[in-house]
Amino acid sequence: MTTSPFAASADQLVPRKEHRFTFGLWTVGNPGRDPFGEPTRAPLDPVDSVRRLAELGAWGVSLHDDDLVPWGTSAAERDRIVARFKSALEETGLGVGMATTNLFTHPAFKDGAFTSNDRAVRRAAIGKAMRAIDLGAELGAEVYVFWGGREGTEAGAAKDPRDALERFREAIDTLADYVVGQGYDLRFALEPKPNEPRGDIFLPTVGHALHFITTLQRPDMVGLNPEVAHETMAGLSFHHAVGQALWAGKLFHIDLNAQRIGRYDQDFRFGAEDLKEGFLLVRLLERAGYDGPRHFDAHAYRNEDPGGVWDFASGCMRTYLALAEKARHFDALPEVQEALEAAGAIELAQPTVGAGDDPATLKAEVDGLDGLAARGFANERLDQLVVEVLLGVR
Amino acid sequence: MTTSPFAASADQLVPRKEHRFTFGLWTVGNPGRDPFGEPTRAPLDPVDSVRRLAELGAWGVSLHDDDLVPWGTSAAERDRIVARFKSALEETGLGVGMATTNLFTHPAFKDGAFTSNDRAVRRAAIGKAMRAIDLGAELGAEVYVFWGGREGTEAGAAKDPRDALERFREAIDTLADYVVGQGYDLRFALEPKPNEPRGDIFLPTVGHALHFITTLQRPDMVGLNPEVAHETMAGLSFHHAVGQALWAGKLFHIDLNAQRIGRYDQDFRFGAEDLKEGFLLVRLLERAGYDGPRHFDAHAYRNEDPGGVWDFASGCMRTYLALAEKARHFDALPEVQEALEAAGAIELAQPTVGAGDDPATLKAEVDGLDGLAARGFANERLDQLVVEVLLGVR
Amino acid sequence: MTTSPFAASADQLVPRKEHRFTFGLWTVGNPGRDPFGEPTRAPLDPVDSVRRLAELGAWGVSLHDDDLVPWGTSAAERDRIVARFKSALEETGLGVGMATTNLFTHPAFKDGAFTSNDRAVRRAAIGKAMRAIDLGAELGAEVYVFWGGREGTEAGAAKDPRDALERFREAIDTLADYVVGQGYDLRFALEPKPNEPRGDIFLPTVGHALHFITTLQRPDMVGLNPEVAHETMAGLSFHHAVGQALWAGKLFHIDLNAQRIGRYDQDFRFGAEDLKEGFLLVRLLERAGYDGPRHFDAHAYRNEDPGGVWDFASGCMRTYLALAEKARHFDALPEVQEALEAAGAIELAQPTVGAGDDPATLKAEVDGLDGLAARGFANERLDQLVVEVLLGVR
Amino acid sequence: MTTSPFAASADQLVPRKEHRFTFGLWTVGNPGRDPFGEPTRAPLDPVDSVRRLAELGAWGVSLHDDDLVPWGTSAAERDRIVARFKSALEETGLGVGMATTNLFTHPAFKDGAFTSNDRAVRRAAIGKAMRAIDLGAELGAEVYVFWGGREGTEAGAAKDPRDALERFREAIDTLADYVVGQGYDLRFALEPKPNEPRGDIFLPTVGHALHFITTLQRPDMVGLNPEVAHETMAGLSFHHAVGQALWAGKLFHIDLNAQRIGRYDQDFRFGAEDLKEGFLLVRLLERAGYDGPRHFDAHAYRNEDPGGVWDFASGCMRTYLALAEKARHFDALPEVQEALEAAGAIELAQPTVGAGDDPATLKAEVDGLDGLAARGFANERLDQLVVEVLLGVR
Repeated sequence: MTTSPFAASADQLVPRKEHRFTFGLWTVGNPGRDPFGEPTRAPLDPVDSVRRLAELGAWGVSLHDDDLVPWGTSAAERDRIVARFKSALEETGLGVGMATTNLFTHPAFKDGAFTSNDRAVRRAAIGKAMRAIDLGAELGAEVYVFWGGREGTEAGAAKDPRDALERFREAIDTLADYVVGQGYDLRFALEPKPNEPRGDIFLPTVGHALHFITTLQRPDMVGLNPEVAHETMAGLSFHHAVGQALWAGKLFHIDLNAQRIGRYDQDFRFGAEDLKEGFLLVRLLERAGYDGPRHFDAHAYRNEDPGGVWDFASGCMRTYLALAEKARHFDALPEVQEALEAAGAIELAQPTVGAGDDPATLKAEVDGLDGLAARGFANERLDQLVVEVLLGVR
Repeated sequence: MTTSPFAASADQLVPRKEHRFTFGLWTVGNPGRDPFGEPTRAPLDPVDSVRRLAELGAWGVSLHDDDLVPWGTSAAERDRIVARFKSALEETGLGVGMATTNLFTHPAFKDGAFTSNDRAVRRAAIGKAMRAIDLGAELGAEVYVFWGGREGTEAGAAKDPRDALERFREAIDTLADYVVGQGYDLRFALEPKPNEPRGDIFLPTVGHALHFITTLQRPDMVGLNPEVAHETMAGLSFHHAVGQALWAGKLFHIDLNAQRIGRYDQDFRFGAEDLKEGFLLVRLLERAGYDGPRHFDAHAYRNEDPGGVWDFASGCMRTYLALAEKARHFDALPEVQEALEAAGAIELAQPTVGAGDDPATLKAEVDGLDGLAARGFANERLDQLVVEVLLGVR
Repeated sequence: MTTSPFAASADQLVPRKEHRFTFGLWTVGNPGRDPFGEPTRAPLDPVDSVRRLAELGAWGVSLHDDDLVPWGTSAAERDRIVARFKSALEETGLGVGMATTNLFTHPAFKDGAFTSNDRAVRRAAIGKAMRAIDLGAELGAEVYVFWGGREGTEAGAAKDPRDALERFREAIDTLADYVVGQGYDLRFALEPKPNEPRGDIFLPTVGHALHFITTLQRPDMVGLNPEVAHETMAGLSFHHAVGQALWAGKLFHIDLNAQRIGRYDQDFRFGAEDLKEGFLLVRLLERAGYDGPRHFDAHAYRNEDPGGVWDFASGCMRTYLALAEKARHFDALPEVQEALEAAGAIELAQPTVGAGDDPATLKAEVDGLDGLAARGFANERLDQLVVEVLLGVR
Repeated sequence: MTTSPFAASADQLVPRKEHRFTFGLWTVGNPGRDPFGEPTRAPLDPVDSVRRLAELGAWGVSLHDDDLVPWGTSAAERDRIVARFKSALEETGLGVGMATTNLFTHPAFKDGAFTSNDRAVRRAAIGKAMRAIDLGAELGAEVYVFWGGREGTEAGAAKDPRDALERFREAIDTLADYVVGQGYDLRFALEPKPNEPRGDIFLPTVGHALHFITTLQRPDMVGLNPEVAHETMAGLSFHHAVGQALWAGKLFHIDLNAQRIGRYDQDFRFGAEDLKEGFLLVRLLERAGYDGPRHFDAHAYRNEDPGGVWDFASGCMRTYLALAEKARHFDALPEVQEALEAAGAIELAQPTVGAGDDPATLKAEVDGLDGLAARGFANERLDQLVVEVLLGVR
């Protein structure tokens, strides 16, 4: 466990650069369009977003290629836009936490990008990612994210999943080669999602993506960008997923937001749903010494006006800070340490098998099972302590 | 694609040994107890189950240690039970598709087995698995399954997920060593599940387990036993999950049943829910040449009497056979081949990048995206063909 | 049970007017826009849709006010559009199954329409519904539908649900008065939905809406328009919901499509998911003699081109016809009648208590419970017959 | 809004009788059996449970007939058990909040009780309910609950849902007559649930049950007993459901616990999941002046020993008290009142249509919609205030 910038905060709910909070340009810039309604807010100028986020205490921003340089922009205009954006970054001191490619908005990607059944689309998708990697490198992004939102099916018979995985692998291998060939200092982070906008998406969970990475030609260069909403849609424990990514050394980036299980992709303000899971997540990140960006991939409710967007952004950071402080407080309470002891939480870190154990020894222990059944694990006590610390009544 | 025993069936719905259907002793023997009610059927003698399954056309059975040798049985009685069971197998010609350890019924496993916070329980769990592996080897099981049903939490603070994964890995590594040390010809298959009976279970999906295998000391020895109900509980596509397992060369065994999304573990008769997903699964298995047991991990509805159990078992096999026949018929229809062509399904098997491609070439293809957007993928036509073949109207 | 036009079909999968199939203008006209992507198909001229649907064998169409008369159209232009549309209906002989109001696309409805927290929006919503009712009456619609897609919350504290229900009731009562005052021959049908586009929508299920109707001033005038996708999103049995609506005499209209549980609103082609539930639904509708429109509220996959839209529309009708034929065949099979008898399905229609029963008699029967426990209900046999009839192997 | 006993608590987390907390005998007495494991705790003597709950500050208990008088008990023994239990109630001053009938544990109920396809079972079920009503009346229960846990199907073809609802209605009407005939002072409360232990249960939600009540012969005598876990399983908003029940005057009782969406029935400690929904619920109950029992239908985690059960019980009450205090504090904060004003929350209580409004006036307001679109509803600010009050940082 490392020392966290969250540990010694003077004013605990005020975001500062060392907290490394970042927001996607598309998050504060979300216009409130949904499948049933037209936009409710005007688009934001990325430069204005940068300035406003700097004022609020964020460390940086993240972006898709098309967030900054709209599709169809000429090369000259592209350079002008990028230069102006870089000036704003310099002026405010903001960094670029990650960059990524929009491979889902253009109608040509309607059947997928790296796994489109149309080979020409697949090739253009790789080309678009190369161009966007150039942009990310130019802006100094630390991490390059791949979210395969269109890589899936509604009609299962249309794609053999083994072919799709093979094409996905080919694309990531090709792009990793490209990064190395260009000499860019970029790591990749895959972002899994189970469904929406496709009926079923390939690499639906953190687990599937972790496995996929092991099949790549440059596995060390590729990690994960788990998103709260995506694992939660499938009802999976997000902090368990992040735990497996950390255990594998693959937590390269993280997307923070909120979501109810079994629903459309909500991307609510961080902490707006399931505060206990939020607490377990933040406690895990802080204890593990995660030092990448705390990235919010969320947006304001559609019934907000432009001012409400900044209430939203501020709320994301305040809740993270409050949970980080609560995590610290929780672990400092003597009654929590007692409850963790009673639960055997520390005991789980001890190896099960000792140097001298042989099969006969272990088989013999089976006869003790009836006697082992009496022990209680004090989980009610421990979980109630979590609740009471969360509620601030302890 | 290999030649399937399902391809040339004279009477297509009659199960035969070459179909390799297996049933767990606990499936046909399920007494109909549930969280709200007492058993509705008397226990079955495993030997009677073997005989009845042989009559129905099954290839074999599978079992937990305690299914055959009840907990607390003396060593002498154990040997008598096993000998009698082996006689029944010989008499009927039935094989043992897989064996596994019951690490969830005994109260001592209430906080987990390999990941219990109580180290003594973890040791006894490994010992119990060793004893059960001995039994599995004695019975000639092909595959040894690990379902970590109790390896999870309700109170997240009670277990650091990284510690839990470490203990899980230690246990599997220890047991793999044991198998090698004993000279047994056994492969392991992990069975993931997202929740129930724990609030959140470690290795919740096929993806998480596939990744976990890559962290083991003997990864080649360990594969997957995916279960329809388990992926479906989380709303994930089962045939995509099986596709990833096949792609990884890790489909060592399979648990067939039926389940509605977002519910308690139902373990319904194979085909009782989501016939289209069942069709996609069977088509994938048959096309991939899967030759392991077609194993049913399901049970009769609780409102069945003892006779209904065999209707249930028969129904599982008949529906599999019907779907296998439909898969063959589907791929033989000219209109299906046309629709697959229109969908680009075959095109997905072609590499995206050619030998002569350089980044500049691929980047240049981006400019063709607007022109690529017009193509339709005929997925409605293809999926309707699936439906019509399923319904037998084509 | 009445005689169904589905019973004696010569060519069983060819739609004809007597089948009363209808499609929303917005369904075949869906341009394939989603939260992550731009449209993939051009808008359709409603008149072209009418002609094409007539060719395919549909009975009629349905529409929102804005589907036909775009928001912002002048009065003169509105009359021209309506007259041209009426001509197309006359020319083709198509009817208008239902009409409804778009109270969700305009940004002003971002916090709700009848339950917006802004009273001026609520008033305008009622006014827009009145105008749209005029249009519906002019076009001869049988039923007028209310889907309260924006009537809900993400931030629960923003609306007391009791106030929201009171405002919803006030709006429906006001509009029912308006219809009576105008002398229109229109019935209302409420369409429940649990979530999307709001986090939680008021009147989330068929049950909530059925109760709400009993609180209205003109309850006889108001019924239900249940939608497959909406109940299914929440994992509820759709045929049970339709059963309760039929039992209450409130099935005024129905929205047919397909959906996986626990996902974004998919509106897939009817029959594309859960064929068994589709069969149970169609069998119930046909047995109950439902004679309203069989209305498809679905759309083609986003990766279809304009031609694929008509494959989609045709598929909806073909699958309904196939299921109706299967329902008839199922009930005509002797083995099904035997299985229904064994299951006691007919016995459920008999009153439980007889004229001469007093409490003492009924209390005495408790002592027979142990003896009653032996009976099996043959549900495996019956459900397997459903599956085999569905698959066309019986 | 009435004065709540929660408003002026000196020691805000100490339960007292005026808080009216009750626990089912089956909740603290839950032995920790689940579908995959044997009990982990010994049964409790109901008299001991009464004494222990009194010490902890509960107001009362609730029970099924079989919780107190095990199935198969002789009449003489039954009287002895009841007398001893009544003595314990008198000794401790505890009341009986509600009583109910176990119509789900006995194998005879495997196909349902009031809706079993076996008429003899239906008759015995009504008789058993009559006997249990006698017991409830003898113990002074205020409310009599009906949970139809077995009233449903796995095989949909086995029951026409219209027949099932008709039988359900007949049973409730018969039992209401019985209560009136006996002169008992008892009201009924129906408890809906979507699934488990049946695949699909009739009256799956609060809405379906509210509608069903309107079809009864004595609707005034029958209300609702909503349960957190049951609505949550289907992903429905619990506080919206309770809001509709309150709006209808039908909240006769309530079952408090915690549950994750889309899972097996978890019945966790109140507040263990979704603290924001818990807050919205408690705020609604307190503002509405709900004065029935605050009843916990939950149980300790299976990995608790007997001592952990009382940590569980204490935690339920402490969290309720903490949330009630937070609700009071929330509504007293000036910034909350400002945010509610900005959100228009109060405006929703105003009628939409005034005395002088005619259709022409309302239609004319449609032209103002474009101008109404600019308003923001400050929901981010309001919801963040909920989160910060919950976390105790405001």
